Amino acid sequence: MTEPLRIALAGLGTVGAGVIRLIQTNGELVTRRAGRPIIITAVSARDRAKDRKVDLAPYEWQDDMTAMAHRDDVDVVVELVGGSDGPALTLARAAIASGKALVTANKAMIAHHGLELAGMAEQGGVALKFEAAVAGGIPVVKGLREGAAANAIERLYGILNGTCNYILSTMEDTGADFADVLKEAQAMGFAEADPTFDIDGIDAGHKLAIMASLAFGTVLDFQNVEATGIRRILAADIEQAESLGYVIRLLGMASVEPGGSDGPARLFQRVHPYLVPRDHPLAHVDGATNAVVAEGDFSGRLLFQGAGAGDGPTASAVVADLIDIARGDTGAPFSIPVDLLDAVQPAQTGHRIGKAYLRFTVADRPGVLAELAAAMRDAGVSIESLIQKGPGSDGPVLVAMVTHEGEEACVTRALELLAGSPSLAAPPLVMHILRQ
Amino acid sequence: MTEPLRIALAGLGTVGAGVIRLIQTNGELVTRRAGRPIIITAVSARDRAKDRKVDLAPYEWQDDMTAMAHRDDVDVVVELVGGSDGPALTLARAAIASGKALVTANKAMIAHHGLELAGMAEQGGVALKFEAAVAGGIPVVKGLREGAAANAIERLYGILNGTCNYILSTMEDTGADFADVLKEAQAMGFAEADPTFDIDGIDAGHKLAIMASLAFGTVLDFQNVEATGIRRILAADIEQAESLGYVIRLLGMASVEPGGSDGPARLFQRVHPYLVPRDHPLAHVDGATNAVVAEGDFSGRLLFQGAGAGDGPTASAVVADLIDIARGDTGAPFSIPVDLLDAVQPAQTGHRIGKAYLRFTVADRPGVLAELAAAMRDAGVSIESLIQKGPGSDGPVLVAMVTHEGEEACVTRALELLAGSPSLAAPPLVMHILRQ
Repeated sequence: MTEPLRIALAGLGTVGAGVIRLIQTNGELVTRRAGRPIIITAVSARDRAKDRKVDLAPYEWQDDMTAMAHRDDVDVVVELVGGSDGPALTLARAAIASGKALVTANKAMIAHHGLELAGMAEQGGVALKFEAAVAGGIPVVKGLREGAAANAIERLYGILNGTCNYILSTMEDTGADFADVLKEAQAMGFAEADPTFDIDGIDAGHKLAIMASLAFGTVLDFQNVEATGIRRILAADIEQAESLGYVIRLLGMASVEPGGSDGPARLFQRVHPYLVPRDHPLAHVDGATNAVVAEGDFSGRLLFQGAGAGDGPTASAVVADLIDIARGDTGAPFSIPVDLLDAVQPAQTGHRIGKAYLRFTVADRPGVLAELAAAMRDAGVSIESLIQKGPGSDGPVLVAMVTHEGEEACVTRALELLAGSPSLAAPPLVMHILRQ
Repeated sequence: MTEPLRIALAGLGTVGAGVIRLIQTNGELVTRRAGRPIIITAVSARDRAKDRKVDLAPYEWQDDMTAMAHRDDVDVVVELVGGSDGPALTLARAAIASGKALVTANKAMIAHHGLELAGMAEQGGVALKFEAAVAGGIPVVKGLREGAAANAIERLYGILNGTCNYILSTMEDTGADFADVLKEAQAMGFAEADPTFDIDGIDAGHKLAIMASLAFGTVLDFQNVEATGIRRILAADIEQAESLGYVIRLLGMASVEPGGSDGPARLFQRVHPYLVPRDHPLAHVDGATNAVVAEGDFSGRLLFQGAGAGDGPTASAVVADLIDIARGDTGAPFSIPVDLLDAVQPAQTGHRIGKAYLRFTVADRPGVLAELAAAMRDAGVSIESLIQKGPGSDGPVLVAMVTHEGEEACVTRALELLAGSPSLAAPPLVMHILRQ
């Protein structure tokens, strides 16, 4: 047996405790697969006294987290502290700078500082790995970085937030409204007390930006992810979608428009609730599951699905990274060296072609439908189907429509024509429809 | 740019031509991801004159395939000849023996000789890679060897044969019988003129045996895969299954019973038509698609899905292997060095617990149902539901039943009790039911 791979573990929340439990449970198996033992040398967290239901006695406790980066008896620092900046980033920079490999589950940090850290790691010839930062236990970073590496990826999309998917599929099953399901999800621990990052699409945006860089070989660009969450989706939207043959899923979607003489490539990145056709594999992904689709020019459609969060799945991904490092993988973290990634500008979405779902909450009086229809006509939006519903006991009237294929700009223009109209009782909701 | 990775390509069927097309199309992208160019030095096939719709002019033609293993200007031999033995195996052995890496899409050769070749490769410190041998373009060898490497895998199963899945899902959609759909599939090129390998489960067995070794760290054991195909499935079976909430899919299924003081571990490997519950992800996998599920103790259920065959997807997997090699991956082909794989005995299936579907084709006369029910009772089989159907215009009477959970041995005993009974117009059909 060769030299062990020695790790220092920073952050002992549920994921940190999960990693320790995994190494204690599957240690022998991990050793066989890694070709050498993976041992924990030191651990660090804010509160030493907290009971974490794992035996920390075998490991040295280190109060000063960042000092772990400088220990001679450590080969890899595992950062499970969280937060895009602050102590996590300080530790990550220190670890790589002092020649340690870094493994992290921190999607916010990678989305914001991944390229800087990758550049440092490439410079230093050490590994930087973040499988656990994207879609929990699903090996999708590996799938894109290596498995699909021979392909030009045409579209990359998926269900990237388990909380939102749990909420949407529960709304679908029960007919309940968003606010009630969110409350229930919070009570059950499926949603945070402050759910903003999840339900407004920011968490999914982090993952999408990381994957887009891997898939397209483009500079990671989280700032230009266009994110809309699921707060405004009504039970009635889900019902209308269902009657039209769709389910609603919050998707991250990315593609690239190649550059040319007129400038660099344009990267399209959007997190948005989509109407997904019932016969698409993603329509059957329910509960707190994640699923990623990469459509390659040679591979065709690849689907990776599994648990997107939780201590076990995330620990599985962290330790897979450690096994890779033990086996000698120190390749470019983003598949292509940072210096060679393509520069991108954000795509202009107005000329994108697609179908859309529009829902209007309108006053119950004559002429409203004519006003909507006229705005659509004047903006060049062609309507494929339309349902008017209500009013219910005291609810407003809803008008839901699906457009024919057309430019997104036309839909935007139609909404501008209607802006401020007294006929609208609430701002309209637009959702895109996933092309098969 | 560093030294190119130089490959020699043996076999220029659809997959071989696909690999050339991929390298010609995506060459620049492959170079960026691999960190160096991947160039084809020499090609070889039986018939030089054949038009393969790709430009072979840039490559040296070599009539003697095996001589490619000895060229000084070749780093990797890509074997796309096919066949478990013969020229493919001769070439593979020669390549590895002379210090070349080997990449192959040949599932039969790996299922039969994979461990021998892996042992040679480990000895010589060269790579042996076979992503394309299992499930076409889906990176499932990588998923098991690396992505799920931190897990003890509890069950491994999936849809491993696109031809069978095409036939079964078409039977489902059209209500047509097996023979008619097979004929149509042959006409459309979805099934071979001699479909035995596919429809009798041998091809799926090859893939299952390879994956089981990767997933469980056990010695590859194709000989003991218990394989049943789909020839005997009737449109009526699909109809009955549907009314009970299931679809029928040919699955490969494997798990391991740990060894103890009384002997080595026992490996369960079965290819069999299963009834899959409608709410299981595999129930929605239609057409010529493959899908593999690995259930890890930490990761939970991981699903990998995509095109299981075809020149594009297979080429995608072959070139992903080449990129891995270019990046320096020379690790153990089966994740664990061959010498350290666990020895196994085949599992005894009689004590396995599960539900089963049984279909009897019976004579239309009084007392037959009583005879069936008595046999079930006497063998200790408890019936959950039963449907008797027919006779149709001139068809026989069908009795389909689903058992409660019970030992497989009891079902076997029941069938033994009924063997030779004049009430049975045809041998009964047994299918297992996939546990969620």
